[in-house]
Amino acid sequence: MFAVEVRDHVMIAHSLPSPVFGPAQGMHGATFVVDAAFYTGDLDENGLVVDIGLATEALSAALAPLRYCNLDEVAAFKGKITTTEFLCHHIWSQLRETTQTTGLGDGGRVRRIRVMLHESHVARGWYEADI
Amino acid sequence: MFAVEVRDHVMIAHSLPSPVFGPAQGMHGATFVVDAAFYTGDLDENGLVVDIGLATEALSAALAPLRYCNLDEVAAFKGKITTTEFLCHHIWSQLRETTQTTGLGDGGRVRRIRVMLHESHVARGWYEADI
Amino acid sequence: MFAVEVRDHVMIAHSLPSPVFGPAQGMHGATFVVDAAFYTGDLDENGLVVDIGLATEALSAALAPLRYCNLDEVAAFKGKITTTEFLCHHIWSQLRETTQTTGLGDGGRVRRIRVMLHESHVARGWYEADI
Amino acid sequence: MFAVEVRDHVMIAHSLPSPVFGPAQGMHGATFVVDAAFYTGDLDENGLVVDIGLATEALSAALAPLRYCNLDEVAAFKGKITTTEFLCHHIWSQLRETTQTTGLGDGGRVRRIRVMLHESHVARGWYEADI
Amino acid sequence: MFAVEVRDHVMIAHSLPSPVFGPAQGMHGATFVVDAAFYTGDLDENGLVVDIGLATEALSAALAPLRYCNLDEVAAFKGKITTTEFLCHHIWSQLRETTQTTGLGDGGRVRRIRVMLHESHVARGWYEADI
Amino acid sequence: MFAVEVRDHVMIAHSLPSPVFGPAQGMHGATFVVDAAFYTGDLDENGLVVDIGLATEALSAALAPLRYCNLDEVAAFKGKITTTEFLCHHIWSQLRETTQTTGLGDGGRVRRIRVMLHESHVARGWYEADI
Repeated sequence: MFAVEVRDHVMIAHSLPSPVFGPAQGMHGATFVVDAAFYTGDLDENGLVVDIGLATEALSAALAPLRYCNLDEVAAFKGKITTTEFLCHHIWSQLRETTQTTGLGDGGRVRRIRVMLHESHVARGWYEADI
Repeated sequence: MFAVEVRDHVMIAHSLPSPVFGPAQGMHGATFVVDAAFYTGDLDENGLVVDIGLATEALSAALAPLRYCNLDEVAAFKGKITTTEFLCHHIWSQLRETTQTTGLGDGGRVRRIRVMLHESHVARGWYEADI
Repeated sequence: MFAVEVRDHVMIAHSLPSPVFGPAQGMHGATFVVDAAFYTGDLDENGLVVDIGLATEALSAALAPLRYCNLDEVAAFKGKITTTEFLCHHIWSQLRETTQTTGLGDGGRVRRIRVMLHESHVARGWYEADI
Repeated sequence: MFAVEVRDHVMIAHSLPSPVFGPAQGMHGATFVVDAAFYTGDLDENGLVVDIGLATEALSAALAPLRYCNLDEVAAFKGKITTTEFLCHHIWSQLRETTQTTGLGDGGRVRRIRVMLHESHVARGWYEADI
Repeated sequence: MFAVEVRDHVMIAHSLPSPVFGPAQGMHGATFVVDAAFYTGDLDENGLVVDIGLATEALSAALAPLRYCNLDEVAAFKGKITTTEFLCHHIWSQLRETTQTTGLGDGGRVRRIRVMLHESHVARGWYEADI
Repeated sequence: MFAVEVRDHVMIAHSLPSPVFGPAQGMHGATFVVDAAFYTGDLDENGLVVDIGLATEALSAALAPLRYCNLDEVAAFKGKITTTEFLCHHIWSQLRETTQTTGLGDGGRVRRIRVMLHESHVARGWYEADI
């Protein structure tokens, strides 16, 4: 299988309101360096998985509502705990929609997406699934 | 599939006593930067794959018997050649046991583990399997 | 599954002659940092996936015809658009041939290869398949 | 000159209340991966710049009051804008005090300290000065 | 001294027409990941070295004439050998001019600039000087 | 000032026989990823700090006696504690000698050398001085 992966980042605040999070229950924050990988079974006539410019724009658009935000105040996350894993799935869902709507330049050949969030130099999470 | 990955490291000495290892047959050593990834099919009620604190402790505990060691003198490795790949599997086995015993906070949702050892900026190995 | 991955790089020039590439249609270039991963189901009697020295040599040999080249003038790429993804597959094919011919020291246990090209700090592509 | 550098990180929330910060004026956050370097003119009788264990503890102690915090509510930062640069200097000051008080194991040979905060894969800041 | 550093990249083709360059005499290329650091002696009233947004724009503008270019055809480089070191100095000169003209938001407090070009995972060059 | 930096690595065993090293007193080991930077005040007629091929060879030659070694058995280190910092200075001395003898292709323009050893993802040391 082929894949192309692009990178961007967001800087957010949030609280994680459950005792399991210990010192992270209060308001704190994170830089998430975000990698989005798009998988196809073959290359198009230009030798591409997807148009990397469009993939970069899709990731940037998926991250736009999160940039410099307090996630506790984002309506879409009402009642949710915005863990790294949860955000991986959220961004993945946004990218699936963009990919299915626009094809990222290739008319719908993308089969699978992976979204990985690096939260520090020692921890990261990801969600990967067929679309 | 979801995953969370944590990082730690160990600094060990060992010899690799087989002609295939050429100059690495004698006593030398390595820093292994170790990534342990835990995979689940879903998130728990707190939006977690596993409790990242418990995952970090599990990795640290798996590495503890190796820290600042000469692996040639570790009883568990008697008669074994402690290659990067072999150590990936060894640490993976330790993490599988911890995961199955403790659930890493989630009552047994972990399906798969990957253990990756970076031995330098140009070489690494890993073992990944369902548990 | 076990894997061992080695790293090398090439510095090439090329043009990408299709309107989809926008400003990259003209002659430009890239450093590709190349990771080649070899997968096996088990370890050999020395505790190895493959001989890492042979794997490194195989990757270096696969990259040799590309080093400091203008890919537009490489006969093997006549009529092709040498995208990152295309080159992943090209190098993968070279490594498959070497692996099948030489076994990389292990008599044919390699089942799968992945070739990943990092084209910058924010973009990379890969091809992964059973051999 | 000799130096030893150790790494840790903190995950914080803050706002940057000045129009110059544009979208970062509101509550958001960051992971700061923090490198602290200690410089000496020579090595001690054990071949050390400083005791790396003590240096790591000193950095961890300097970061402790910031871990998982909303910096807007930290008394020490009242009336301050907690930019990356400002925090470099703040942590530097903490490390200078620890170094001057404890010597980090070497009786006061440290001449200079640098504190670098990586706020993303594309931006970082530092403060470096003699102590 | 304080510093803030931002990162961008360019992908270029060039030849290095002197026997000292061996296989790199012909047309080939590189991805240069470029770090630009700006140094000041103090922070401004907002706690800043420079406005990081303006610094990022200044770097992007300095790189714009090089993006996806064949440097052999860039008029400004006529008769020059466009080594990594040479390009460090060239970009540094552009940034000096922008800094002196615009102040990067701070009215002329920048004292020193460093421009670093990473040409691969094993080689990089830089130029650093007072402005 | 201009600089060019090249990277290589060694994998060694050693013991650190002083109580200050705690658990590292016994036989253990390390991968040292080694960066060697060469500084000049100007560029030569080919636009170079030094010949990067010669710099890479010089570093490789300096590391050759350490590759896959038990440093406790290296005659040159008899009675020494082979800390990261000590090794930085040792390799620096080797590179100074090579630079002064051969000029690294430029007839003696190198003014300063820095040798940095990365011992893990969270610790490194360096020695930098005029030659």
